[in-house]
Amino acid sequence: MKKIVIIGGVAAGLKAAAKARRCDPKASIIVLERGELISYGACGMPYYVSGDVKDIDDLMKTPVGAMRNSTFFKNVKDITVLTKTEATAIDREAKTVKVQKRVSGEEEVIPYDKLVIATGASAIKPPLAGVELSNIYQLWHPDDAKAVRQGLEGNQFKSAVIIGAGLIGMEMAEALTKWKIPVTVVEMKNQVFPAFLDTEIGGIVGKYVQDKGITLLLDEKVVRFTGDTSVAAVETDKRSIPADLVILAIGARPNVELAKAAGLVIGSTGAIVVDEEMRTSDPDIYAGGDCVENVNVMSGKKVFAPMGSTANKHGRIIGENLCGGHLKFKGVLTTAVAQIHSLSVGKTGLTERDTKQLGYDYITTMVAGHDKPHYMPGAKLITVKLIVDANTSKVLGMQAVGEGDVSKRIDVVATVLTLGGSIEDLFDIDLSYAPPYNSPIDNVVVAANTLMNKLAGKFKGISSLEAKEKMTSGDTVFLDVRSPEECKQIRLADYENITYIPLGQLRSRLVELNKNDEIIAFCKISLRGYEAEGILEGVGFENVKVLEGGIVSWPFVCDKKNDC
Amino acid sequence: MKKIVIIGGVAAGLKAAAKARRCDPKASIIVLERGELISYGACGMPYYVSGDVKDIDDLMKTPVGAMRNSTFFKNVKDITVLTKTEATAIDREAKTVKVQKRVSGEEEVIPYDKLVIATGASAIKPPLAGVELSNIYQLWHPDDAKAVRQGLEGNQFKSAVIIGAGLIGMEMAEALTKWKIPVTVVEMKNQVFPAFLDTEIGGIVGKYVQDKGITLLLDEKVVRFTGDTSVAAVETDKRSIPADLVILAIGARPNVELAKAAGLVIGSTGAIVVDEEMRTSDPDIYAGGDCVENVNVMSGKKVFAPMGSTANKHGRIIGENLCGGHLKFKGVLTTAVAQIHSLSVGKTGLTERDTKQLGYDYITTMVAGHDKPHYMPGAKLITVKLIVDANTSKVLGMQAVGEGDVSKRIDVVATVLTLGGSIEDLFDIDLSYAPPYNSPIDNVVVAANTLMNKLAGKFKGISSLEAKEKMTSGDTVFLDVRSPEECKQIRLADYENITYIPLGQLRSRLVELNKNDEIIAFCKISLRGYEAEGILEGVGFENVKVLEGGIVSWPFVCDKKNDC
Repeated sequence: MKKIVIIGGVAAGLKAAAKARRCDPKASIIVLERGELISYGACGMPYYVSGDVKDIDDLMKTPVGAMRNSTFFKNVKDITVLTKTEATAIDREAKTVKVQKRVSGEEEVIPYDKLVIATGASAIKPPLAGVELSNIYQLWHPDDAKAVRQGLEGNQFKSAVIIGAGLIGMEMAEALTKWKIPVTVVEMKNQVFPAFLDTEIGGIVGKYVQDKGITLLLDEKVVRFTGDTSVAAVETDKRSIPADLVILAIGARPNVELAKAAGLVIGSTGAIVVDEEMRTSDPDIYAGGDCVENVNVMSGKKVFAPMGSTANKHGRIIGENLCGGHLKFKGVLTTAVAQIHSLSVGKTGLTERDTKQLGYDYITTMVAGHDKPHYMPGAKLITVKLIVDANTSKVLGMQAVGEGDVSKRIDVVATVLTLGGSIEDLFDIDLSYAPPYNSPIDNVVVAANTLMNKLAGKFKGISSLEAKEKMTSGDTVFLDVRSPEECKQIRLADYENITYIPLGQLRSRLVELNKNDEIIAFCKISLRGYEAEGILEGVGFENVKVLEGGIVSWPFVCDKKNDC
Repeated sequence: MKKIVIIGGVAAGLKAAAKARRCDPKASIIVLERGELISYGACGMPYYVSGDVKDIDDLMKTPVGAMRNSTFFKNVKDITVLTKTEATAIDREAKTVKVQKRVSGEEEVIPYDKLVIATGASAIKPPLAGVELSNIYQLWHPDDAKAVRQGLEGNQFKSAVIIGAGLIGMEMAEALTKWKIPVTVVEMKNQVFPAFLDTEIGGIVGKYVQDKGITLLLDEKVVRFTGDTSVAAVETDKRSIPADLVILAIGARPNVELAKAAGLVIGSTGAIVVDEEMRTSDPDIYAGGDCVENVNVMSGKKVFAPMGSTANKHGRIIGENLCGGHLKFKGVLTTAVAQIHSLSVGKTGLTERDTKQLGYDYITTMVAGHDKPHYMPGAKLITVKLIVDANTSKVLGMQAVGEGDVSKRIDVVATVLTLGGSIEDLFDIDLSYAPPYNSPIDNVVVAANTLMNKLAGKFKGISSLEAKEKMTSGDTVFLDVRSPEECKQIRLADYENITYIPLGQLRSRLVELNKNDEIIAFCKISLRGYEAEGILEGVGFENVKVLEGGIVSWPFVCDKKNDC
């Protein structure tokens, strides 16, 4: 009878256990979990804090309401889960794991034939003065989530500061605003989601969250926390922010102490090195989930990219391979998606920043449009940024943001990336079309078409960042081809050299423009901007560009004008 | 100056015109449209009839509200659109089109260098007695939609019959139920969506629409319509159905008369034959949209598959190629999606029926599950059917149905099909994961995993159709492993040999089952059914199968039981 021991009872560990049981009905399978809870949906915690998820137990239940506890795993899967049981050492020679009961302090040695390390990751706690004050939380364990929610329900918190504008930080910002308390997000870098969005997409998100009442402080560093026993203020390098609730969300590091002490190879990312079959440097020890490093399939580089979906895949692969299988994990695209109020934002594959660093000859575009026909109720705009290899037209990465359906487009492009597809392939896909779900030409196909036009020299776009640069000299003419009504509602701010000619009048008002000027044409989403480029080029203008994504994708300040 | 003439001013024709203008600012571009309206979103008509779209003009406007009429095309794109102008003959030798003004009857001959035929398709009108009675409509033109909506607003219609349970028929059934009049759908074949769903998926949809109060009459043929001047009843081969509104939705046929008279090659599908560059048998004449046949890329066969998204692609390709380009249209996957009340249903690629006909050695599975974590508000179930080549594990087709997000999964699989991916590729995709959008293991990945298990002999499933067959002998044990509470709400009906043992008790109640029996295990979605299979096989049962998709995917009658 094979003895399988698994350290860690959340995603990867229990998935591996379940799969191993499936492959080998006779094996002894023991899961060691140092905490009290197992198999919880950690990614659901922000939605519990917000109140969307009523009960914390819902995160630990099966779809039909059974608690996934030790009894459940014993009865259903014949898996022994020992909770409050910490693995303290691995003896690879003897093939044993030393464990300590956290309540009694009792120690025990458990033998294994195959061992799985699924020790997860921990939230990083910055070594700042006052960080141990109470009401400073890391949303890393259901107990944290419970404490925060309890305080919110008891009206204990009057204002919150979140440190870090990454995934958990922004999800928590949204969760806390639902309790109608002022929320400030402090981020060291100059944008939200600095790890996975390009600057201009981050800028769009930043504008949105500030519109929703979240105070966003970028390029700002927390230096200490003050207060008596509980936190009272967050001191940054620029100001002091009163706060009686602080959420630390500055990232995570893999829990590798046990693996390291056992002499297993740790990678340059700080996470455990595994091969494609999820084996560590010891062939009898597998590792998976948030404690291992992954290959980024787009760059070929090792990355630390913890994600619940990846952990589940690792678990499946490990479970099979524990029983002699040879499943392989190919790697990650560092796909990510998040919801902030009604805004969805996501990415897959390389950002433009990554692409540049890797030395690609690349080309990008940014297009905005409705996620279904504009006449349908509920049609919303999204902005898609697509990045492709300029030589092969292979898709390298994509980002999307908007109130429309972003995740569908992310998933389509993630599929293209996995299969090595090009923008021509994107055009070829016979995507589902019906007005409740999609426009006849999907947003990602519009992006692919735009890039084909760009590569063929038929479309000259300019990104919002480059266009903003052009504003410094004042020489460039920004040509706004929207209607006067639209212009009165919103327009580009902080620039004087804007000419307003509605598209329908452009052919008859050409005298108002100068062929020698550099002209940047745009509208709400720059579809009319693109028409304007065509009209002007058709009559011999040679220096016309389209502002990609239009006003809806403009990451800088906008204002109104009464006399458009 | 190149002379481009385009016959047809809806999707493909105007897209080709716009693209051609882009590529050639100097060309003369004339679009001939026999109707009064151009560039309308025909697919939006059911949503106008339902009232979701307020104004019929919304289907003809740009996203910012400009009417896409002749003036718009002249001012913005310098394209001449002649409405109420019918092309009556093509002289390929002289390279001219003869046109007739529909109002004045005046005739004219227009010369071309390149001609585009985008004459679309027409709804089929069955040659039945009474078909010309008033209030019998074909939802094919905005005028029909306006007439139907007007009648509904005036409470003119007391009950409606729809002939044909295809896309338009079912969309109209939903639209009409919103007006709270009784709706009956009559379909000749034995299921809804007979052209694009397998029987059991069609069965799930059929159950749903009947639950929503739509009367569905399958295997039933309309023989005549009766009434004085307007329709009063629909007579079928089985009954007489009173109706003062009838919608004919039995399909469409391509408008090829003009092409045929000009001697262009018509295919076996009845539509115009074009090559990959959308050229007809005359190199100076292109054709696109609903009047041409397409290649089904999965089967390699020619099909007549009109779809607005395809027409738009054709238009783009034709527009480029008119100016010397060589873009190619690769073909269609016959992807389709529809919404009926809260239910979404769709397909891409081959159905099982297609696969069988083509002689594939194939394998299928059907899995049900939530479209995001069950603890999230708004999480809904979907059922996915995946069909793969048993020898290569290449994905061949997929269908999905449920109240959850179906279109995203359709689009991911459509992408896999376009790029020739396998179920292993499906597993590899790093899909976006966050609780508002997705579970850590997406529904299509669960389906891929299940098929990998099946191919490896680790999962024995049985389809609902086969399971229903097993009920005829009465020997097969159906093992329901749900809780008694669930069983009291709904259970499989019309079968006595069902054993009820909740999954958590199965290991301790094995004596209640017989190892020699054929056992079909199931639950709500058959996840616990799968666990039950594992438990039973682990103790030596050799004839256990899992009912794929569980009760939620059971296309036959269910009832309740008080003593589970």
